[in-house]
Amino acid sequence: MDILDIIRDRRSIRKFQQKIPDDTVIETMLEAARWAPSGLNNQPWKFLILKDKKQKDYISQFTKDSRIIKNAPCIILVCLNLHDSYNRDKDLMALGAAIQNMLLVAYHSGLGTCWLGEILNRKKEVSYYVNLPDDVELMAVVAVGYPDENPEGNRKPLKDLMVHI
Amino acid sequence: MDILDIIRDRRSIRKFQQKIPDDTVIETMLEAARWAPSGLNNQPWKFLILKDKKQKDYISQFTKDSRIIKNAPCIILVCLNLHDSYNRDKDLMALGAAIQNMLLVAYHSGLGTCWLGEILNRKKEVSYYVNLPDDVELMAVVAVGYPDENPEGNRKPLKDLMVHI
Repeated sequence: MDILDIIRDRRSIRKFQQKIPDDTVIETMLEAARWAPSGLNNQPWKFLILKDKKQKDYISQFTKDSRIIKNAPCIILVCLNLHDSYNRDKDLMALGAAIQNMLLVAYHSGLGTCWLGEILNRKKEVSYYVNLPDDVELMAVVAVGYPDENPEGNRKPLKDLMVHI
Repeated sequence: MDILDIIRDRRSIRKFQQKIPDDTVIETMLEAARWAPSGLNNQPWKFLILKDKKQKDYISQFTKDSRIIKNAPCIILVCLNLHDSYNRDKDLMALGAAIQNMLLVAYHSGLGTCWLGEILNRKKEVSYYVNLPDDVELMAVVAVGYPDENPEGNRKPLKDLMVHI
């Protein structure tokens, strides 16, 4: 598959099969994340993998995306490592690059993913439950599993995204 | 090339050949950026392409990365569309995902890129010069061209990136 096809065809998946993804595929996602670029190569990311049903169910109470988190066989918490952070704007963009690497590799491996953000409204409660260190800030939850739906995607046309001078 | 190889082998390129990249390749980079995921699918990005030597030279005065911007045959200004923004943290991560898509597609097409951030210290001056609208905030400059160097990369080991509970 061409890289542009992977980028264009990947969709957010909110319904998953109950088949458990292999540990090696999840590790490949993190390997991809690890190689994202970052300002001053500070690599300001930390990851936490959760597969335990009881833990997922507990966390799911803190978001409107509860059903997705319960349904996904695995979730990955993506965090900002405040200890290595030097510029919040740039570090957040680096995190976005790392997450996108994860999503692309997952899709290429036949997995579906959903990048969840609404849960950040309750990041305090989630962080307390999973015992995140004080210098590690939750920035996204990525739900992972084999897709059980095939949604359409849509984007603004390129001409609307250009600034002309 | 496998997607993981593209992700792992891509390097920041700071020296470019003077060969001009084809417009279609630059457009493919933007096409890839356009398909990044974003919170509520708000697609909070705007792009501006600069190839004119005089304009690049002028902008280059506002950064320590001056040499890279002068040397690159093309730069892409990546901006946050404040009009469509709903959550700065999430929108910046979405921008990072869009930028990473651009970098990966460029690398796959044989182009080198450098994601520049230091210039943001003078975003006011750059924005004024390129006449960015008030609701469009400069967040990154991506230098693009055919690579004239082959640098090494390094990253923290995966075990140092995991939070264990």
